[in-house]
Amino acid sequence: MRKLQIAVIGYNNECSDVARKMAYEAGKEIARAGAVLVCGGLGGVMESACKGAKENGGITLGIIPQEEFSYANQFCDLVVCTGIGFARDFIVASSADGIIAVGGGVGTLIEMGVGYMTGKTMVALAGSGGVAELYGGKFLDERNRLKIIVAKDAASAVKIITDKAKT
Amino acid sequence: MRKLQIAVIGYNNECSDVARKMAYEAGKEIARAGAVLVCGGLGGVMESACKGAKENGGITLGIIPQEEFSYANQFCDLVVCTGIGFARDFIVASSADGIIAVGGGVGTLIEMGVGYMTGKTMVALAGSGGVAELYGGKFLDERNRLKIIVAKDAASAVKIITDKAKT
Amino acid sequence: MRKLQIAVIGYNNECSDVARKMAYEAGKEIARAGAVLVCGGLGGVMESACKGAKENGGITLGIIPQEEFSYANQFCDLVVCTGIGFARDFIVASSADGIIAVGGGVGTLIEMGVGYMTGKTMVALAGSGGVAELYGGKFLDERNRLKIIVAKDAASAVKIITDKAKT
Amino acid sequence: MRKLQIAVIGYNNECSDVARKMAYEAGKEIARAGAVLVCGGLGGVMESACKGAKENGGITLGIIPQEEFSYANQFCDLVVCTGIGFARDFIVASSADGIIAVGGGVGTLIEMGVGYMTGKTMVALAGSGGVAELYGGKFLDERNRLKIIVAKDAASAVKIITDKAKT
Repeated sequence: MRKLQIAVIGYNNECSDVARKMAYEAGKEIARAGAVLVCGGLGGVMESACKGAKENGGITLGIIPQEEFSYANQFCDLVVCTGIGFARDFIVASSADGIIAVGGGVGTLIEMGVGYMTGKTMVALAGSGGVAELYGGKFLDERNRLKIIVAKDAASAVKIITDKAKT
Repeated sequence: MRKLQIAVIGYNNECSDVARKMAYEAGKEIARAGAVLVCGGLGGVMESACKGAKENGGITLGIIPQEEFSYANQFCDLVVCTGIGFARDFIVASSADGIIAVGGGVGTLIEMGVGYMTGKTMVALAGSGGVAELYGGKFLDERNRLKIIVAKDAASAVKIITDKAKT
Repeated sequence: MRKLQIAVIGYNNECSDVARKMAYEAGKEIARAGAVLVCGGLGGVMESACKGAKENGGITLGIIPQEEFSYANQFCDLVVCTGIGFARDFIVASSADGIIAVGGGVGTLIEMGVGYMTGKTMVALAGSGGVAELYGGKFLDERNRLKIIVAKDAASAVKIITDKAKT
Repeated sequence: MRKLQIAVIGYNNECSDVARKMAYEAGKEIARAGAVLVCGGLGGVMESACKGAKENGGITLGIIPQEEFSYANQFCDLVVCTGIGFARDFIVASSADGIIAVGGGVGTLIEMGVGYMTGKTMVALAGSGGVAELYGGKFLDERNRLKIIVAKDAASAVKIITDKAKT
């Protein structure tokens, strides 16, 4: 009954134009796949992904660090005001069936760490920069539990996650 | 753009039939008002409210204590897996524009406390038992900031919240 | 091996002189009993309790909402920077073997709620005002699991908790 | 007034003997430096570090994921029962003036990520394995804000942190 929930993670406002564009595409493809877009609800990659999903008929859920709705970007349909600061990174990753990384700094790495710990399908977009490229194709620790898959574009990334969810 | 988010809080599985019925009505009225139902995502009042919303075309968001989706009731459209245990009570209350209490024990009181602290419109359903009746019509501390309004039924409760949101 | 941990909870800076004095006494008695003082690490009741404990050879642990040490009062020996905002109220209560309430507003009530939920010995100081007096002698919900005991002074409060811990 | 708080992070029970020994040394050196040992309060590296500190006159603080004291290892003087699951990794890192990594898996990487984000002095022990070796000497993201320093032994690691704290 529940729809698939796919998180898009990455840079906040210091986001490059390339990453913004890729995030928009990721949001669009998530919407087209009939999945829900989950994200951290703020600017940059999060906002672009939300915009991409909204302009393509999708549903968007922003999970923000703050206690007040007003911090969420305008493209969030639903907002979860955690009030727990950056520990909300745990919740973003736990609340996803699969995760797409688009660039990103250490906050994104933390979310990837939680995804790794909890066994989520994780995909990094090639060419998006940041930790998506630094850690794409790798395992985050020596236990080699789960490789971060590199995808050439947003459509492939979403397909990897939806295919995995069917099995 | 964002829809109004109304939380229904109350007993988990030890719920009375009366409270269950009232929670169903609350979910239904929230759906009819075009608002999103937010709740703790588990059983009892939460499940009945979700069922009421789903059977009336609404959208339901469950914010659960656990880290895995499988703990959510089957009527949640979107699930936020907090993994932070009962501290998720803070997030349920913070993520609501208004709160409806239907019976409930101390967990519900904690959610009402957070709602009081963060200035949410809070309504307790008359006849629903539990902390909704114990604290309905009262202020939770001596600062008398915000009274928990008693409503005679679910439709009135939702109206109080939607009216307040317009101002 | 671990020492008993006793939490003192109550008003932050809007604290009355009476409550401040009582909190100081509570800290002092906790130190004399050889227990660790746990608190929310900020001002008002928390600061006075820390001062009372420090001036009597005790150990003090402040669990603050913020991410930076600098928010803690100067009488905290150890500081836990939760960064999770007021959801840290859960952690203060969970980290106590027993809880002493000295006045307090809704944040204190939330901590009492968590203490009730997790079965802690809870004592409210008579004459301290706030929620300590509003809820002292009562059960917080209709399950009547655990009564908030009223104590006439700090020494009695600490004794109630240490006696209980021995059983 | 407050003593320096140094966190030791690393593997839980799947810990190698080498890492256990190094963690013991780290705890010992922290105690000798007059600092407080902060850790996640469970087994493996955490337990060995606590043992090392306790047997050398130090103070130990365990910040555990669970809600009950009983999960903490027996060498914790003070226990903070967060009840928030592995999101407590944020709190361990935030509650440290400096961090020493001894081996470790992805949970340790997450703690290093939080330390990186919040600007803590971070030292990885050479030869300890796990993420300490994988990420030692590196920056965690492309912003290159803070390098994880590699130290040849526990005494050097503690010295790096205490020296930094004086500046």
